[in-house]
Amino acid sequence: MNMCELIVKKKRGGRLNEKEIDWIVQGYTAGEIPDYQMSAMLMAICFTGMDEEETKDLTLSMAKSGDLMDLSAIHGKKIDKHSTGGVGDKTTLVIGPLAAAAGVPVAKMSGRGLGHTGGTIDKLESFHGFHTSLTPEQFIKNVNSIHIALAGQTANLAPADKKIYALRDVTGTVDQMSLIASSIMSKKLASGADGIVLDVKTGDGAFMKTLEDSKALAREMVQIGTLAGRDMSAVISDMDQPLGYAVGNALEVKEAIATLNGNGPEDLRELVLVLTSLMVVKAGKAKDIREARILLEETLDSGKALQVMKEWIVAQGGTAEEVEHPDLLPQALCQEAVCAEKSGFVTKIHTEEIGRICMLLGGGRAKKGDPIDLSVGLVLRKKVGDPVHSGESLAILHANDREKLAEAKERLLKAYEIKKEPVAVRPLIWEILDGTEAE
Amino acid sequence: MNMCELIVKKKRGGRLNEKEIDWIVQGYTAGEIPDYQMSAMLMAICFTGMDEEETKDLTLSMAKSGDLMDLSAIHGKKIDKHSTGGVGDKTTLVIGPLAAAAGVPVAKMSGRGLGHTGGTIDKLESFHGFHTSLTPEQFIKNVNSIHIALAGQTANLAPADKKIYALRDVTGTVDQMSLIASSIMSKKLASGADGIVLDVKTGDGAFMKTLEDSKALAREMVQIGTLAGRDMSAVISDMDQPLGYAVGNALEVKEAIATLNGNGPEDLRELVLVLTSLMVVKAGKAKDIREARILLEETLDSGKALQVMKEWIVAQGGTAEEVEHPDLLPQALCQEAVCAEKSGFVTKIHTEEIGRICMLLGGGRAKKGDPIDLSVGLVLRKKVGDPVHSGESLAILHANDREKLAEAKERLLKAYEIKKEPVAVRPLIWEILDGTEAE
Repeated sequence: MNMCELIVKKKRGGRLNEKEIDWIVQGYTAGEIPDYQMSAMLMAICFTGMDEEETKDLTLSMAKSGDLMDLSAIHGKKIDKHSTGGVGDKTTLVIGPLAAAAGVPVAKMSGRGLGHTGGTIDKLESFHGFHTSLTPEQFIKNVNSIHIALAGQTANLAPADKKIYALRDVTGTVDQMSLIASSIMSKKLASGADGIVLDVKTGDGAFMKTLEDSKALAREMVQIGTLAGRDMSAVISDMDQPLGYAVGNALEVKEAIATLNGNGPEDLRELVLVLTSLMVVKAGKAKDIREARILLEETLDSGKALQVMKEWIVAQGGTAEEVEHPDLLPQALCQEAVCAEKSGFVTKIHTEEIGRICMLLGGGRAKKGDPIDLSVGLVLRKKVGDPVHSGESLAILHANDREKLAEAKERLLKAYEIKKEPVAVRPLIWEILDGTEAE
Repeated sequence: MNMCELIVKKKRGGRLNEKEIDWIVQGYTAGEIPDYQMSAMLMAICFTGMDEEETKDLTLSMAKSGDLMDLSAIHGKKIDKHSTGGVGDKTTLVIGPLAAAAGVPVAKMSGRGLGHTGGTIDKLESFHGFHTSLTPEQFIKNVNSIHIALAGQTANLAPADKKIYALRDVTGTVDQMSLIASSIMSKKLASGADGIVLDVKTGDGAFMKTLEDSKALAREMVQIGTLAGRDMSAVISDMDQPLGYAVGNALEVKEAIATLNGNGPEDLRELVLVLTSLMVVKAGKAKDIREARILLEETLDSGKALQVMKEWIVAQGGTAEEVEHPDLLPQALCQEAVCAEKSGFVTKIHTEEIGRICMLLGGGRAKKGDPIDLSVGLVLRKKVGDPVHSGESLAILHANDREKLAEAKERLLKAYEIKKEPVAVRPLIWEILDGTEAE
């Protein structure tokens, strides 16, 4: 095969077959195909696209470019949940223990935060001593005993995706739907779960800003997973304002614990129940969504899920005390309220900007490997649709640096739109896609 | 400036301004912008194009990336001729001495052949001792004394174009009109002529196979040159069959000498007169095309042009004897006729294939630096429209290798289409574009 000829074929709108895609992916990963040919191919794909067969082939080829997790030693059907990332999205912290408590084996691979969205591992490191460096044996033992374990992605999980993504990032080829879908799904397929529930965010704080794009991405990912033999569902959930109230690592952990205690924000609890219900049905722990939801509400309200949270944190190096007394978690030195300068209704919260304010305070990374401050962030007091009086606080900022605090305050005021008339609040759940329907 | 952002801008159909283009071209040439970003940019340009301002800016930026020839020490208006390349195109060998004999200073930079088309320097090296390694002083002195000198392109002529072209060649981004036009014109502008007459070939043996593409390329190049302040014309000439009868280095030199002797093929003589007339008018040696043609016919028929040819060859290391007795030029060991297997009319000659047969015999290069055999090639006996009887020879092959000769014979038979009914012969000159009109 000849890479230049394959580039021309794709440029002219032709389709690449399985062998060609595999040759490209494995050749590029091995360094046999140079970056400059791969970037030309990626740019051609941005213009002429890929059909669903090509997208599936690309995904599978990237998935098998490195280690394929073998979860067969884990009893029961393994169901994974994946979120496309948002601001204040701490669902994994609640869904993990909740699904585990309902009998679903949760064998989760997770990542760190980048840009305006956070990462589950960072958040969990708010627990002193918590670590993800489990041996494969320990990981499987934990899932079989307490139904939950969380590991960092191994360096060799879908290395083709890692290399291709790094190239897309610097060649203006990030925003192509099939490339985005295959990038996410290659890691999910390599992680070895039998079923996957996707939480595709939509709105200002999401990677996909429009409902149309979010739906298209969800459809592509469900299709890929289904073609690859996985039990797939996707929920399109709103990210036009932060989920819950807390944004920032330790602050989000506290809100997750409150939710496991039955005192969490309504939107967070609802999204957790919707996503976990789908997981419970896939795992065969309930016959339908209705039954799953009743089971999960009972599991939450009875404190069983909170109990699993403690066991989990302890099993990975933390202490139960910090789950019982979240005020032991990292705390920022300054807490300062930002107050409204006029009265009316909150009509919009610029959500990506909220994520960036958290980054500014030190709670997020501009690039991989940057250190982060787990204690900082913000807790909203007002969300879209809420009435607000001049002088009332919109949010509490948690900071360790006075200068950054001043800038954060100014930017937070601008991130809130307050108008005389209230607006209709967007729904939390836009759509639920089922793999069998999408086929 | 940020290359990734400029790629995205172009990808979305935006236009790049002069500063941005210059930053990209100089940065890429200096190795500060990596190949993988440049190839993504080039692929984006293939899809979204460049307007005439961008194309001019790209050309000028590539032209000034290396040496700019200073021809100011040469008396009179310097007029260059450039052909986009074809099969059997030996026009430069005739036009050079003819224009020089008519008083036009010919200060020519030329190249070697690649692929199915030949190069002027290779052809001239058929003269024993001929070389192009003149010092800049010698080059200028020769033009001032005998009105003609030919040099190889210096290594540092438009190095940006050289680097970008090499990248395009391996990333499927060759066939974009503005990129092609700017690549050719950057070298022409750097070569320093005041006026340029372009011979844009069209048809099976040309780089541009369709009249539409050839016209578009001619228009783009004339526009670029005019915007850059050069006196431009372009002739669209037919390359749907070889020009003249001879194809191969020494064989073409012999045909050129015959043309200077008044015994050349009609199509070659006509194209030479059309192109040189435009040069003569631009140089101010005739007031219009009609007057120029009369002057040139007299210059040819009187033997003045042949005399300049001798002086030129001698000035660059050859001998006048070889011009006077072309049978002293390199000769292949075997000459073999290929005979028609049926009677009728020649309706088509697959011209690119004729060029490739010459390559097969050793007369052309597959890649830069390959050695070539100056003596081999073929001389057609029949051209499109000619009646042919079964058993009559279609062409004489000149070869030094029996095995290659056998393959060439077989392929040549297939390159000729012979049908019962004659077809209309395509015109030699399709169109003449004038720079002042194209503006």
